[in-house]
Amino acid sequence: MNPLEIISRKRDRQKLSREELFFMVDNFTGGRIPDFQFSAFLMAAFLNGLNSGETFWLTEAMLYSGKTVKFRKSDHPVYDKHSTGGVGDKISLTLSPLLASVGVHIAMLSGRGLGHTGGTLDKLESISGINPFWSENQIKSRLAKTGIAICGQTDRIAPADKKIYALRDLTATVESIPLITASILSKKLALVTDGIIFDIKVGSGAFMKTRRQAVELARSLLNVCRKFKRPAASILTDMSEPTGHNIGNYLEVMEVIEFLKTGQPEDIRRITYSLAYEIICFGAKKIDRRKMYWLFDEMIKTGKALEHFRRFARISGARSGPVDDPKRYFKPQVSAVIRSETRGFVHKFNTELIGRASLELGAGRQRIADRIDPMAGIIVTRKIGQRIEKGKTLYRLFSSSKSRLKTAKEMLEESVEIGKEKIASPPKIITLIKR
Amino acid sequence: MNPLEIISRKRDRQKLSREELFFMVDNFTGGRIPDFQFSAFLMAAFLNGLNSGETFWLTEAMLYSGKTVKFRKSDHPVYDKHSTGGVGDKISLTLSPLLASVGVHIAMLSGRGLGHTGGTLDKLESISGINPFWSENQIKSRLAKTGIAICGQTDRIAPADKKIYALRDLTATVESIPLITASILSKKLALVTDGIIFDIKVGSGAFMKTRRQAVELARSLLNVCRKFKRPAASILTDMSEPTGHNIGNYLEVMEVIEFLKTGQPEDIRRITYSLAYEIICFGAKKIDRRKMYWLFDEMIKTGKALEHFRRFARISGARSGPVDDPKRYFKPQVSAVIRSETRGFVHKFNTELIGRASLELGAGRQRIADRIDPMAGIIVTRKIGQRIEKGKTLYRLFSSSKSRLKTAKEMLEESVEIGKEKIASPPKIITLIKR
Repeated sequence: MNPLEIISRKRDRQKLSREELFFMVDNFTGGRIPDFQFSAFLMAAFLNGLNSGETFWLTEAMLYSGKTVKFRKSDHPVYDKHSTGGVGDKISLTLSPLLASVGVHIAMLSGRGLGHTGGTLDKLESISGINPFWSENQIKSRLAKTGIAICGQTDRIAPADKKIYALRDLTATVESIPLITASILSKKLALVTDGIIFDIKVGSGAFMKTRRQAVELARSLLNVCRKFKRPAASILTDMSEPTGHNIGNYLEVMEVIEFLKTGQPEDIRRITYSLAYEIICFGAKKIDRRKMYWLFDEMIKTGKALEHFRRFARISGARSGPVDDPKRYFKPQVSAVIRSETRGFVHKFNTELIGRASLELGAGRQRIADRIDPMAGIIVTRKIGQRIEKGKTLYRLFSSSKSRLKTAKEMLEESVEIGKEKIASPPKIITLIKR
Repeated sequence: MNPLEIISRKRDRQKLSREELFFMVDNFTGGRIPDFQFSAFLMAAFLNGLNSGETFWLTEAMLYSGKTVKFRKSDHPVYDKHSTGGVGDKISLTLSPLLASVGVHIAMLSGRGLGHTGGTLDKLESISGINPFWSENQIKSRLAKTGIAICGQTDRIAPADKKIYALRDLTATVESIPLITASILSKKLALVTDGIIFDIKVGSGAFMKTRRQAVELARSLLNVCRKFKRPAASILTDMSEPTGHNIGNYLEVMEVIEFLKTGQPEDIRRITYSLAYEIICFGAKKIDRRKMYWLFDEMIKTGKALEHFRRFARISGARSGPVDDPKRYFKPQVSAVIRSETRGFVHKFNTELIGRASLELGAGRQRIADRIDPMAGIIVTRKIGQRIEKGKTLYRLFSSSKSRLKTAKEMLEESVEIGKEKIASPPKIITLIKR
């Protein structure tokens, strides 16, 4: 076997074997296939595609480039959740304490944000004291104690993915369903959980702009999970507007705490409850959705869900201030507001532009090496379909520099359409895909 | 402009601008775009193609990465010839002295052989004493003196092509009509001649296996030449069997000398005369083909063509033995014969396999760094359509080692089909394409 032959075969639209894909991944990861050959391979795979078998083998090869983490047998099932990333998407942090409060454990390895969508690790780190990098033993013991393990990926998990992703990022080979599938799952499958739920965001603020693409990705992910005999389901959720109101790392933590106290805002509630319900359905025959939602409401009303979040934050090293008294702790350096120039109803957001404005404010990274301002971000006061009066605040902006505020303001002024007619709020849950 | 954007645009089947192609080539050649990005670009260009404008600009960018060589004004027009390479193709060395003998000058930069086809430089170097690397001044002065300049490409000619070709060779991006066009022409156009004739080989021993591919390459080459205002024509010639009888470096030189003495074998005569005639037509309105062929015959009969070859060899440094008395000079270390197992007519050759057998014998290179045995090679005693008796010699093999002889023998035994029915010799000249 040699790399040139394998590149030629994919270039000529031939189907690669398991051995060939392992050969490519193993030797590239081991430094025996040079970057320039692997990038030609990636472009051939990008343009000619990989079928479901090839995608499975590629995932396997990337997964087994590192080690897997198995959990001790316990009474609590352990599930994993993955989001393809959206603007204001903090559902990992609302879902996990809610599930933990009903005895269902959540373990997930999270990443940093890059581009206009945020990363859970950055959100956790905005809570002073938190160190989101856990050892494998900590993952196991802390999960057993708190029901939640959300932490950074270690170097021992799917090292092939790290190396391949870095190359894809520089060779215009990111936006490929099979390559995305293998990248996501090589990390997700490394935690040997009882099932995975995928939250696939669709719309102007998401990676998948159309429902067709999102369905394709969902099917590809579920396909590979099935081949690994890992229970899985995908929920397509709406990203035509930001999730919740807050965008930015600590701003989102604040909204998580708000949600765990009040069950609001409504879109976060719907998405969180739907995902939680589907996860619980993995382990059971048939569960009444209304009863389960009632139970979730109870967990919030009684403060049990919040208590689980606090426990998780504490064990991760959080100081008490940021969790117990967010409003006092939130201290942005400069801020501004954007007011509505007309009266009417919010018809449309350019969600990606809002994400890019928050990035401009300092809430995200353009490049891996960029530093984040944990207090930077945006509060979007209205959701699609809601009324706004002329002169009322539509956005609140937070940053560390006035020039950044100015640029973001200009972007945000272009990011909304307000119309005269009353329109309905878009459905939060677009569809559930189980296979 | 940035490389990632340009790669993405080609990946998405968009048309690149002249500026974008110059940006890619200049920065890759200058080391500012890394190999791994350029190889992704090459694969995208390979799979999504380049249109005729893009191919022209890519050629320009590669050509102008180096310098061009202009000739002094003289009474003799200077033409260039390019062959896409075939098994036993020694036409550069038969054509140039024939043309020189009628006052038409030929200048060409040649390369080494790689894979199953030979390279003119290697053939020249099999003549003891010849140094085929000339300075630009030598090219001009020796051309003026002998009418022939055939030598190696200098580092100053199209350095971009050298770097790009090395990468294509390792990334399965060689067999692309636009990339081949730009590679050939960036070197060919660097010699500012009065016209170029392309000999495009078609068939089992050639790079272009089908007539359709060959026509496509011919059109692409002529298209770009037209944009450069360089007169050009393409002749498609048959490669369903080796050209002539001899394959291997010095063996081919021997056949060149034989041809210049006798005008035989017939296929070499037909191809050489056709190319010579078309070149002469570049500079004239209408020329009678029969009269011209008669003149060519005269140049051979009178020894004038051979005398031009001798002059060229001498000025290149050749000792007299190899040119004056080839049979005495030809001293292979080991040899063998393959006899026909049946009686009948040669129906078919697997010409590529014959090429690979000669490579196995030591006549060519698998890799750039391999050393060549100048005496190694094969004599094919029969052409398609010729009769052979059972037990008569079909191939003579020459090498430096018995084990190589053995392997080549096994290959050659599979390389011929002999049938009962008499069949015609394939036409040597398939078609002429002028635009």
